[in-house]
Amino acid sequence: MEPKAVAESRTTMTEVVLPNDANAYGFILGGKVMHLMDMAAAVAAWRHCRKPVVTVSVDSVRFLSPVKVGQLILLDAFLTRSFRTSMEVEVHVFSEDPLTGQRMKTSDAFLTFVALGEDDRPTEVPPVKPETPEELRRYEAAMERRRRRLTTKS
Amino acid sequence: MEPKAVAESRTTMTEVVLPNDANAYGFILGGKVMHLMDMAAAVAAWRHCRKPVVTVSVDSVRFLSPVKVGQLILLDAFLTRSFRTSMEVEVHVFSEDPLTGQRMKTSDAFLTFVALGEDDRPTEVPPVKPETPEELRRYEAAMERRRRRLTTKS
Amino acid sequence: MEPKAVAESRTTMTEVVLPNDANAYGFILGGKVMHLMDMAAAVAAWRHCRKPVVTVSVDSVRFLSPVKVGQLILLDAFLTRSFRTSMEVEVHVFSEDPLTGQRMKTSDAFLTFVALGEDDRPTEVPPVKPETPEELRRYEAAMERRRRRLTTKS
Amino acid sequence: MEPKAVAESRTTMTEVVLPNDANAYGFILGGKVMHLMDMAAAVAAWRHCRKPVVTVSVDSVRFLSPVKVGQLILLDAFLTRSFRTSMEVEVHVFSEDPLTGQRMKTSDAFLTFVALGEDDRPTEVPPVKPETPEELRRYEAAMERRRRRLTTKS
Amino acid sequence: MEPKAVAESRTTMTEVVLPNDANAYGFILGGKVMHLMDMAAAVAAWRHCRKPVVTVSVDSVRFLSPVKVGQLILLDAFLTRSFRTSMEVEVHVFSEDPLTGQRMKTSDAFLTFVALGEDDRPTEVPPVKPETPEELRRYEAAMERRRRRLTTKS
Amino acid sequence: MEPKAVAESRTTMTEVVLPNDANAYGFILGGKVMHLMDMAAAVAAWRHCRKPVVTVSVDSVRFLSPVKVGQLILLDAFLTRSFRTSMEVEVHVFSEDPLTGQRMKTSDAFLTFVALGEDDRPTEVPPVKPETPEELRRYEAAMERRRRRLTTKS
Repeated sequence: MEPKAVAESRTTMTEVVLPNDANAYGFILGGKVMHLMDMAAAVAAWRHCRKPVVTVSVDSVRFLSPVKVGQLILLDAFLTRSFRTSMEVEVHVFSEDPLTGQRMKTSDAFLTFVALGEDDRPTEVPPVKPETPEELRRYEAAMERRRRRLTTKS
Repeated sequence: MEPKAVAESRTTMTEVVLPNDANAYGFILGGKVMHLMDMAAAVAAWRHCRKPVVTVSVDSVRFLSPVKVGQLILLDAFLTRSFRTSMEVEVHVFSEDPLTGQRMKTSDAFLTFVALGEDDRPTEVPPVKPETPEELRRYEAAMERRRRRLTTKS
Repeated sequence: MEPKAVAESRTTMTEVVLPNDANAYGFILGGKVMHLMDMAAAVAAWRHCRKPVVTVSVDSVRFLSPVKVGQLILLDAFLTRSFRTSMEVEVHVFSEDPLTGQRMKTSDAFLTFVALGEDDRPTEVPPVKPETPEELRRYEAAMERRRRRLTTKS
Repeated sequence: MEPKAVAESRTTMTEVVLPNDANAYGFILGGKVMHLMDMAAAVAAWRHCRKPVVTVSVDSVRFLSPVKVGQLILLDAFLTRSFRTSMEVEVHVFSEDPLTGQRMKTSDAFLTFVALGEDDRPTEVPPVKPETPEELRRYEAAMERRRRRLTTKS
Repeated sequence: MEPKAVAESRTTMTEVVLPNDANAYGFILGGKVMHLMDMAAAVAAWRHCRKPVVTVSVDSVRFLSPVKVGQLILLDAFLTRSFRTSMEVEVHVFSEDPLTGQRMKTSDAFLTFVALGEDDRPTEVPPVKPETPEELRRYEAAMERRRRRLTTKS
Repeated sequence: MEPKAVAESRTTMTEVVLPNDANAYGFILGGKVMHLMDMAAAVAAWRHCRKPVVTVSVDSVRFLSPVKVGQLILLDAFLTRSFRTSMEVEVHVFSEDPLTGQRMKTSDAFLTFVALGEDDRPTEVPPVKPETPEELRRYEAAMERRRRRLTTKS
């Protein structure tokens, strides 16, 4: 299959944090952030392979700073590397204060998706073509994470 | 106040249409589309003035083609012009089929927001600085729409 | 087709505004109001034609005063006129304070629906029969709005 | 306190049943119906006493026929009788098929609310003034139900 | 059919009360509690008969003390008795303060479900086998409640 | 601080998967599963330390088999070990078919929470006291995972 550039599937989302998404203290629920990460990453995976995808694992979700009701939450999801039938997507999450414009990194994570064929079984996806030094660095690191994932589940 | 370029506040959103957002036939509810338009346009207005804003009117919402559960919905919101304390935001909505990548224009609308000062009364916002012929065309048309809005409410 | 009186399809709704429907300041979201308008107007259109309907446009939504969490929101939707396959519905929205009973007009709008036949294509709907001077006035104004809608989209 | 007629607080609601409200078979969840009953009855109680109210009991909720996604659900809530600080509200629920107009009784129930004073303790409410034979019948039956409620909790 | 012990279908649920579930005063909505009761009781009924079930009535729901946003809500649902095609389920609801661990009884209710066969008509369910004095007491009381239910609907 | 047994904070949840929680194919959203994991694990962490907690990281979420609308989802969350101000919680997720009773492991994950003191800064939590060989094994493995977490973030 033809390799595909990272930029072709990169996906950004912008959301307003509503009371509906928050806990009793007015901070966004971790589960809401993970739901948005899953959505943004799934869209990037869809755009890379144009096939139905399912989430098979999520690792290293970090919550670096809280997001409050009334702030914006911005997501940036992009492929790091694909492995025959699976794709690793990296997601960065930022908050933006609508009144000051101040942005802060609030979370990041790696999600792995598998593409499904007509028979609902894993099917091949295009390789990722890294084009910048940064993309190349992530591409190499993805292999290292994959090795760890396959060997360290306790 | 310093005029601000359109690009500085332009806001895009990407959402996956879930069963939760649909009617009994599997099509996205008009009200859900309007909710997303309101969110995207409010973010653009916030970014233009960095003050609390309230929606004061929405006009000419058109629904050109239906969006189905499982598709993506993309929103693009940008300022056309501001009028001392109010801002007109234009929003375009597209669907994207995740399996084919096909995009279609599905809706557009004009929303007007007013910025609120500390006393919760309308407060001044920066002028919009149109920079391209397209932005200039929209800037002129905004004045025409404003004139119509002020005179034709039946 | 037999003309149908306005009263036969008039639809009223009563809702309690919950935290779920509000922004970070405790005011109902514009998008929630538009969702309710769309629902109330769709029910009126259904009752007029007893066929599946889709929203094709919404115009002149005004937000006159904010509605707070804990208040009631009342909607009143009625046909103004139909045009072979389409129906214009006017919606008025009021808030009611549950502790004082005070009511205020908070929004109004015009929504246009098209009825769909078995083949999912536009199909004929009954004419509206205006019966009071007020209904007649709205019936006439609807034609004026339709003319404007068809000519002024920029 | 001045007695108040039943008609002064009677409350009707109209809702479209969305996929969001249904179980895996496309029927409205019993819990959703009870939520709507609680809302409609609370509004009637508010309108009778114009004070904050809390639900203290719900009895005899019957589910007579199922309601499907895409149908309308109509609620009719009215006071039967009040007892110094509490109010009994009867709620009837109907489904309406939007394409045929056919209506069916789907549920009914009795809910009891207590009004709260400034100190968050039960406070007096106006008596109900029954005006029709039907209202009088319900007024008498309410006393019977109250007696049963106070004596039969196992 | 083989009688089944109460313990085999007993169902417990634990939920965090979120702003989404509350009224304007920060207390959980009665309708949300009833929705959770319906879910917990339906699971117990499913586990008793392993067939599709529908709620046919709910009686004697009492709200003894309010539950606040940020608290936990715990549900305990168990069969009291079955009657050929129907099952009575008793549900107890407790709040737990996450910071002190203090628990309070907040509600209880009896719900009746009917099991449906392939033809969507009522079908037989296993008898309940009471094993403790407490279960036996509830088993006897269920018959009394059933008698009352069949005779007293006004 | 007094060590606390694992059993004292162990938390189980039972949920019915509703259309609201699913994607366009009728399978539960990964983000919904992660939201439930976060809720169940937070309750276990609360019960261990009886202080406000925040999620700081989630790792090794695996999705082993899909869960369908209409099935039950069961969560089991328990402390593995605490580290002065943080607690690692392991969560196992199962599906249960309500009509057959068949259960399948569908997900597992490790979540780390930090307890917050009055000043909103990390505060000490009780040590975990492993009591069974299984708990001891998990207790040891937790230290290994913590070491990896601190060293391998790329």
